[in-house]
Amino acid sequence: MKKTAPLIWENKVLKLIDQRKLPHEVLYHDIRNIEETHMAIKDMIVRGAPLIGFTALFGIVLWIKENSEVTASRLIEAGEYLKTARPTAVNLAYEVDRAIELGESLLKEGHTTEEIFDKIEKFAIEQMELLHGHNLSMAKTATAELEKRYGDKKLNIMTLCNTGYLACGPMGTALGVIEYLQTQGKINHVYASETRPYLQGGRLTAYELATGGVPHSITVEGAFSYLMKNGLVDAIFIGADRIVHNGDTANKVGSSTLSIVAKHYGVPFYVVAPTSTFDLTLDAGDKIEIELRPEEEVLCAMDKRIAPYESNALNPSFDVTDHEFISGIICENGIVTDITPENISKIVKG
Amino acid sequence: MKKTAPLIWENKVLKLIDQRKLPHEVLYHDIRNIEETHMAIKDMIVRGAPLIGFTALFGIVLWIKENSEVTASRLIEAGEYLKTARPTAVNLAYEVDRAIELGESLLKEGHTTEEIFDKIEKFAIEQMELLHGHNLSMAKTATAELEKRYGDKKLNIMTLCNTGYLACGPMGTALGVIEYLQTQGKINHVYASETRPYLQGGRLTAYELATGGVPHSITVEGAFSYLMKNGLVDAIFIGADRIVHNGDTANKVGSSTLSIVAKHYGVPFYVVAPTSTFDLTLDAGDKIEIELRPEEEVLCAMDKRIAPYESNALNPSFDVTDHEFISGIICENGIVTDITPENISKIVKG
Repeated sequence: MKKTAPLIWENKVLKLIDQRKLPHEVLYHDIRNIEETHMAIKDMIVRGAPLIGFTALFGIVLWIKENSEVTASRLIEAGEYLKTARPTAVNLAYEVDRAIELGESLLKEGHTTEEIFDKIEKFAIEQMELLHGHNLSMAKTATAELEKRYGDKKLNIMTLCNTGYLACGPMGTALGVIEYLQTQGKINHVYASETRPYLQGGRLTAYELATGGVPHSITVEGAFSYLMKNGLVDAIFIGADRIVHNGDTANKVGSSTLSIVAKHYGVPFYVVAPTSTFDLTLDAGDKIEIELRPEEEVLCAMDKRIAPYESNALNPSFDVTDHEFISGIICENGIVTDITPENISKIVKG
Repeated sequence: MKKTAPLIWENKVLKLIDQRKLPHEVLYHDIRNIEETHMAIKDMIVRGAPLIGFTALFGIVLWIKENSEVTASRLIEAGEYLKTARPTAVNLAYEVDRAIELGESLLKEGHTTEEIFDKIEKFAIEQMELLHGHNLSMAKTATAELEKRYGDKKLNIMTLCNTGYLACGPMGTALGVIEYLQTQGKINHVYASETRPYLQGGRLTAYELATGGVPHSITVEGAFSYLMKNGLVDAIFIGADRIVHNGDTANKVGSSTLSIVAKHYGVPFYVVAPTSTFDLTLDAGDKIEIELRPEEEVLCAMDKRIAPYESNALNPSFDVTDHEFISGIICENGIVTDITPENISKIVKG
């Protein structure tokens, strides 16, 4: 099995791997306009906070391609439309806003639509390259932190959801740490929590671990306590969809549950995310809007109906992990282990 | 939708609903000998601690039916064989031992094989009737306990796995409490955790709640923290596969995780199980052998492969909930809220 890029920008067409079909089928969708981009994000053809952000950037690029006359107000309107595809994903809003800001200043400078297209396209490509550098830096910070705790010991690492190259482009965040640890010969075993209802762990993280030759076992979310009670986990790494000023972290549903169990057993629990994931406009996690996704995701598994047709489901996509349960937040600027608003501000500024 | 008995004894044939096919298909298997009984337990055609016990009793009855000359040593051998079908299920061993003990004493008294058949058959039927009475008593105890805490408030109750009539025969334990609360008009909403990998919650508990007209939502195990953080759960009821002397409780994987999260949020967490589930020969939960079930259960969902073929899984069937996380253990003799070995001994004696 080989690594396959989740996003390819080629001949002014965005090619996205349909992550719903992995690991059994590698299918690329050609995305040619902003409506298809919106659909790809909303329907989870593409997922993972950073990859959603990059997809949105190229969504703006595709919108410019289709519009002979770009104005500031129409650009803003296009951006607002894209943001509605997944309201909780802060990267989506962040990247859209950056593209719009750039577009507005280029308009003010009197650039043609063609020039604006070229410059925002270049910006999108650069952001992906930049993230790769950042993710490598985060992986090195995490490795140093683990060496402080465990020395040369080969480690058992646990993760939830998918935060690898499929989520981020060239290299992942939390799963990027695992990928890097593997290249350093520091992995004993990885436990990938399957992450119902969408099974990003069982499908995508397992796929990445398999493509990387990492020894791993998939487990169910219910097994959190079993694994830690039996001493099978040395450290946990998760990603983030949004980190607010006090360090509270919105991430895939299950993260908060995992953090509470980790605290009980004294297992260190790390959040790995680029500074673009931080939202310092919110002071605490209770201000984060949690997206409720369609009930059918829970009522079905692998496209087959589980439950009686009379049954309902509650399907929160995210939960909020309290900063008190986080041992460290790692970004491209380093690590915060004493999690306070002041220290969060400092590390985000770099 | 209507209630359907999971176990029917008719014309010396044991008819068992194939619980793997529910809720979409109601299929009965005819079980005619001890080998088929063993298979039905091992392959989870039948599940739920009490129903496994009853199935085993009828397995012994079927064995006697097929043997013209019953001796004590051959009876013991048959019983030991049945016990290997699911080593963690204490009810299985308990009921088998009771049937053998009865058989041995009947042999000593000089009864014929036919008479022994009749008497053990009668014993098996009586045990099911007895459990119904016990479960009703547990439901009343639980209801009184909730009234003490919440008065007349309509309640939001959460449960894991399936502990209803499908697991127990005529009436359930933890889900029996919910069934009873519903008849008393005390239910606002029930959250049924889906219980991966076997989805007993999403399939079977949802089926029972639907057949009972109980308003309910299915949730994933990862959502434990989300639900309680948002104040959606007033109390949690689970069953038990084995309760040892200090109150530590082996139950479906996820129970221990749920109990740790419940403690964090101050949500009361109750275990409901008949005294036959208690095993006072073990002093603490770390002595309980945890069954590891086939990896394919995790690697697949609804008979479809999730994970790459290169991936492995770790699939513990149970976990052990620490007695410190249990607000009360309810059995047919009452409730223990101050969980100590002395109080456990007392309640088991009745």
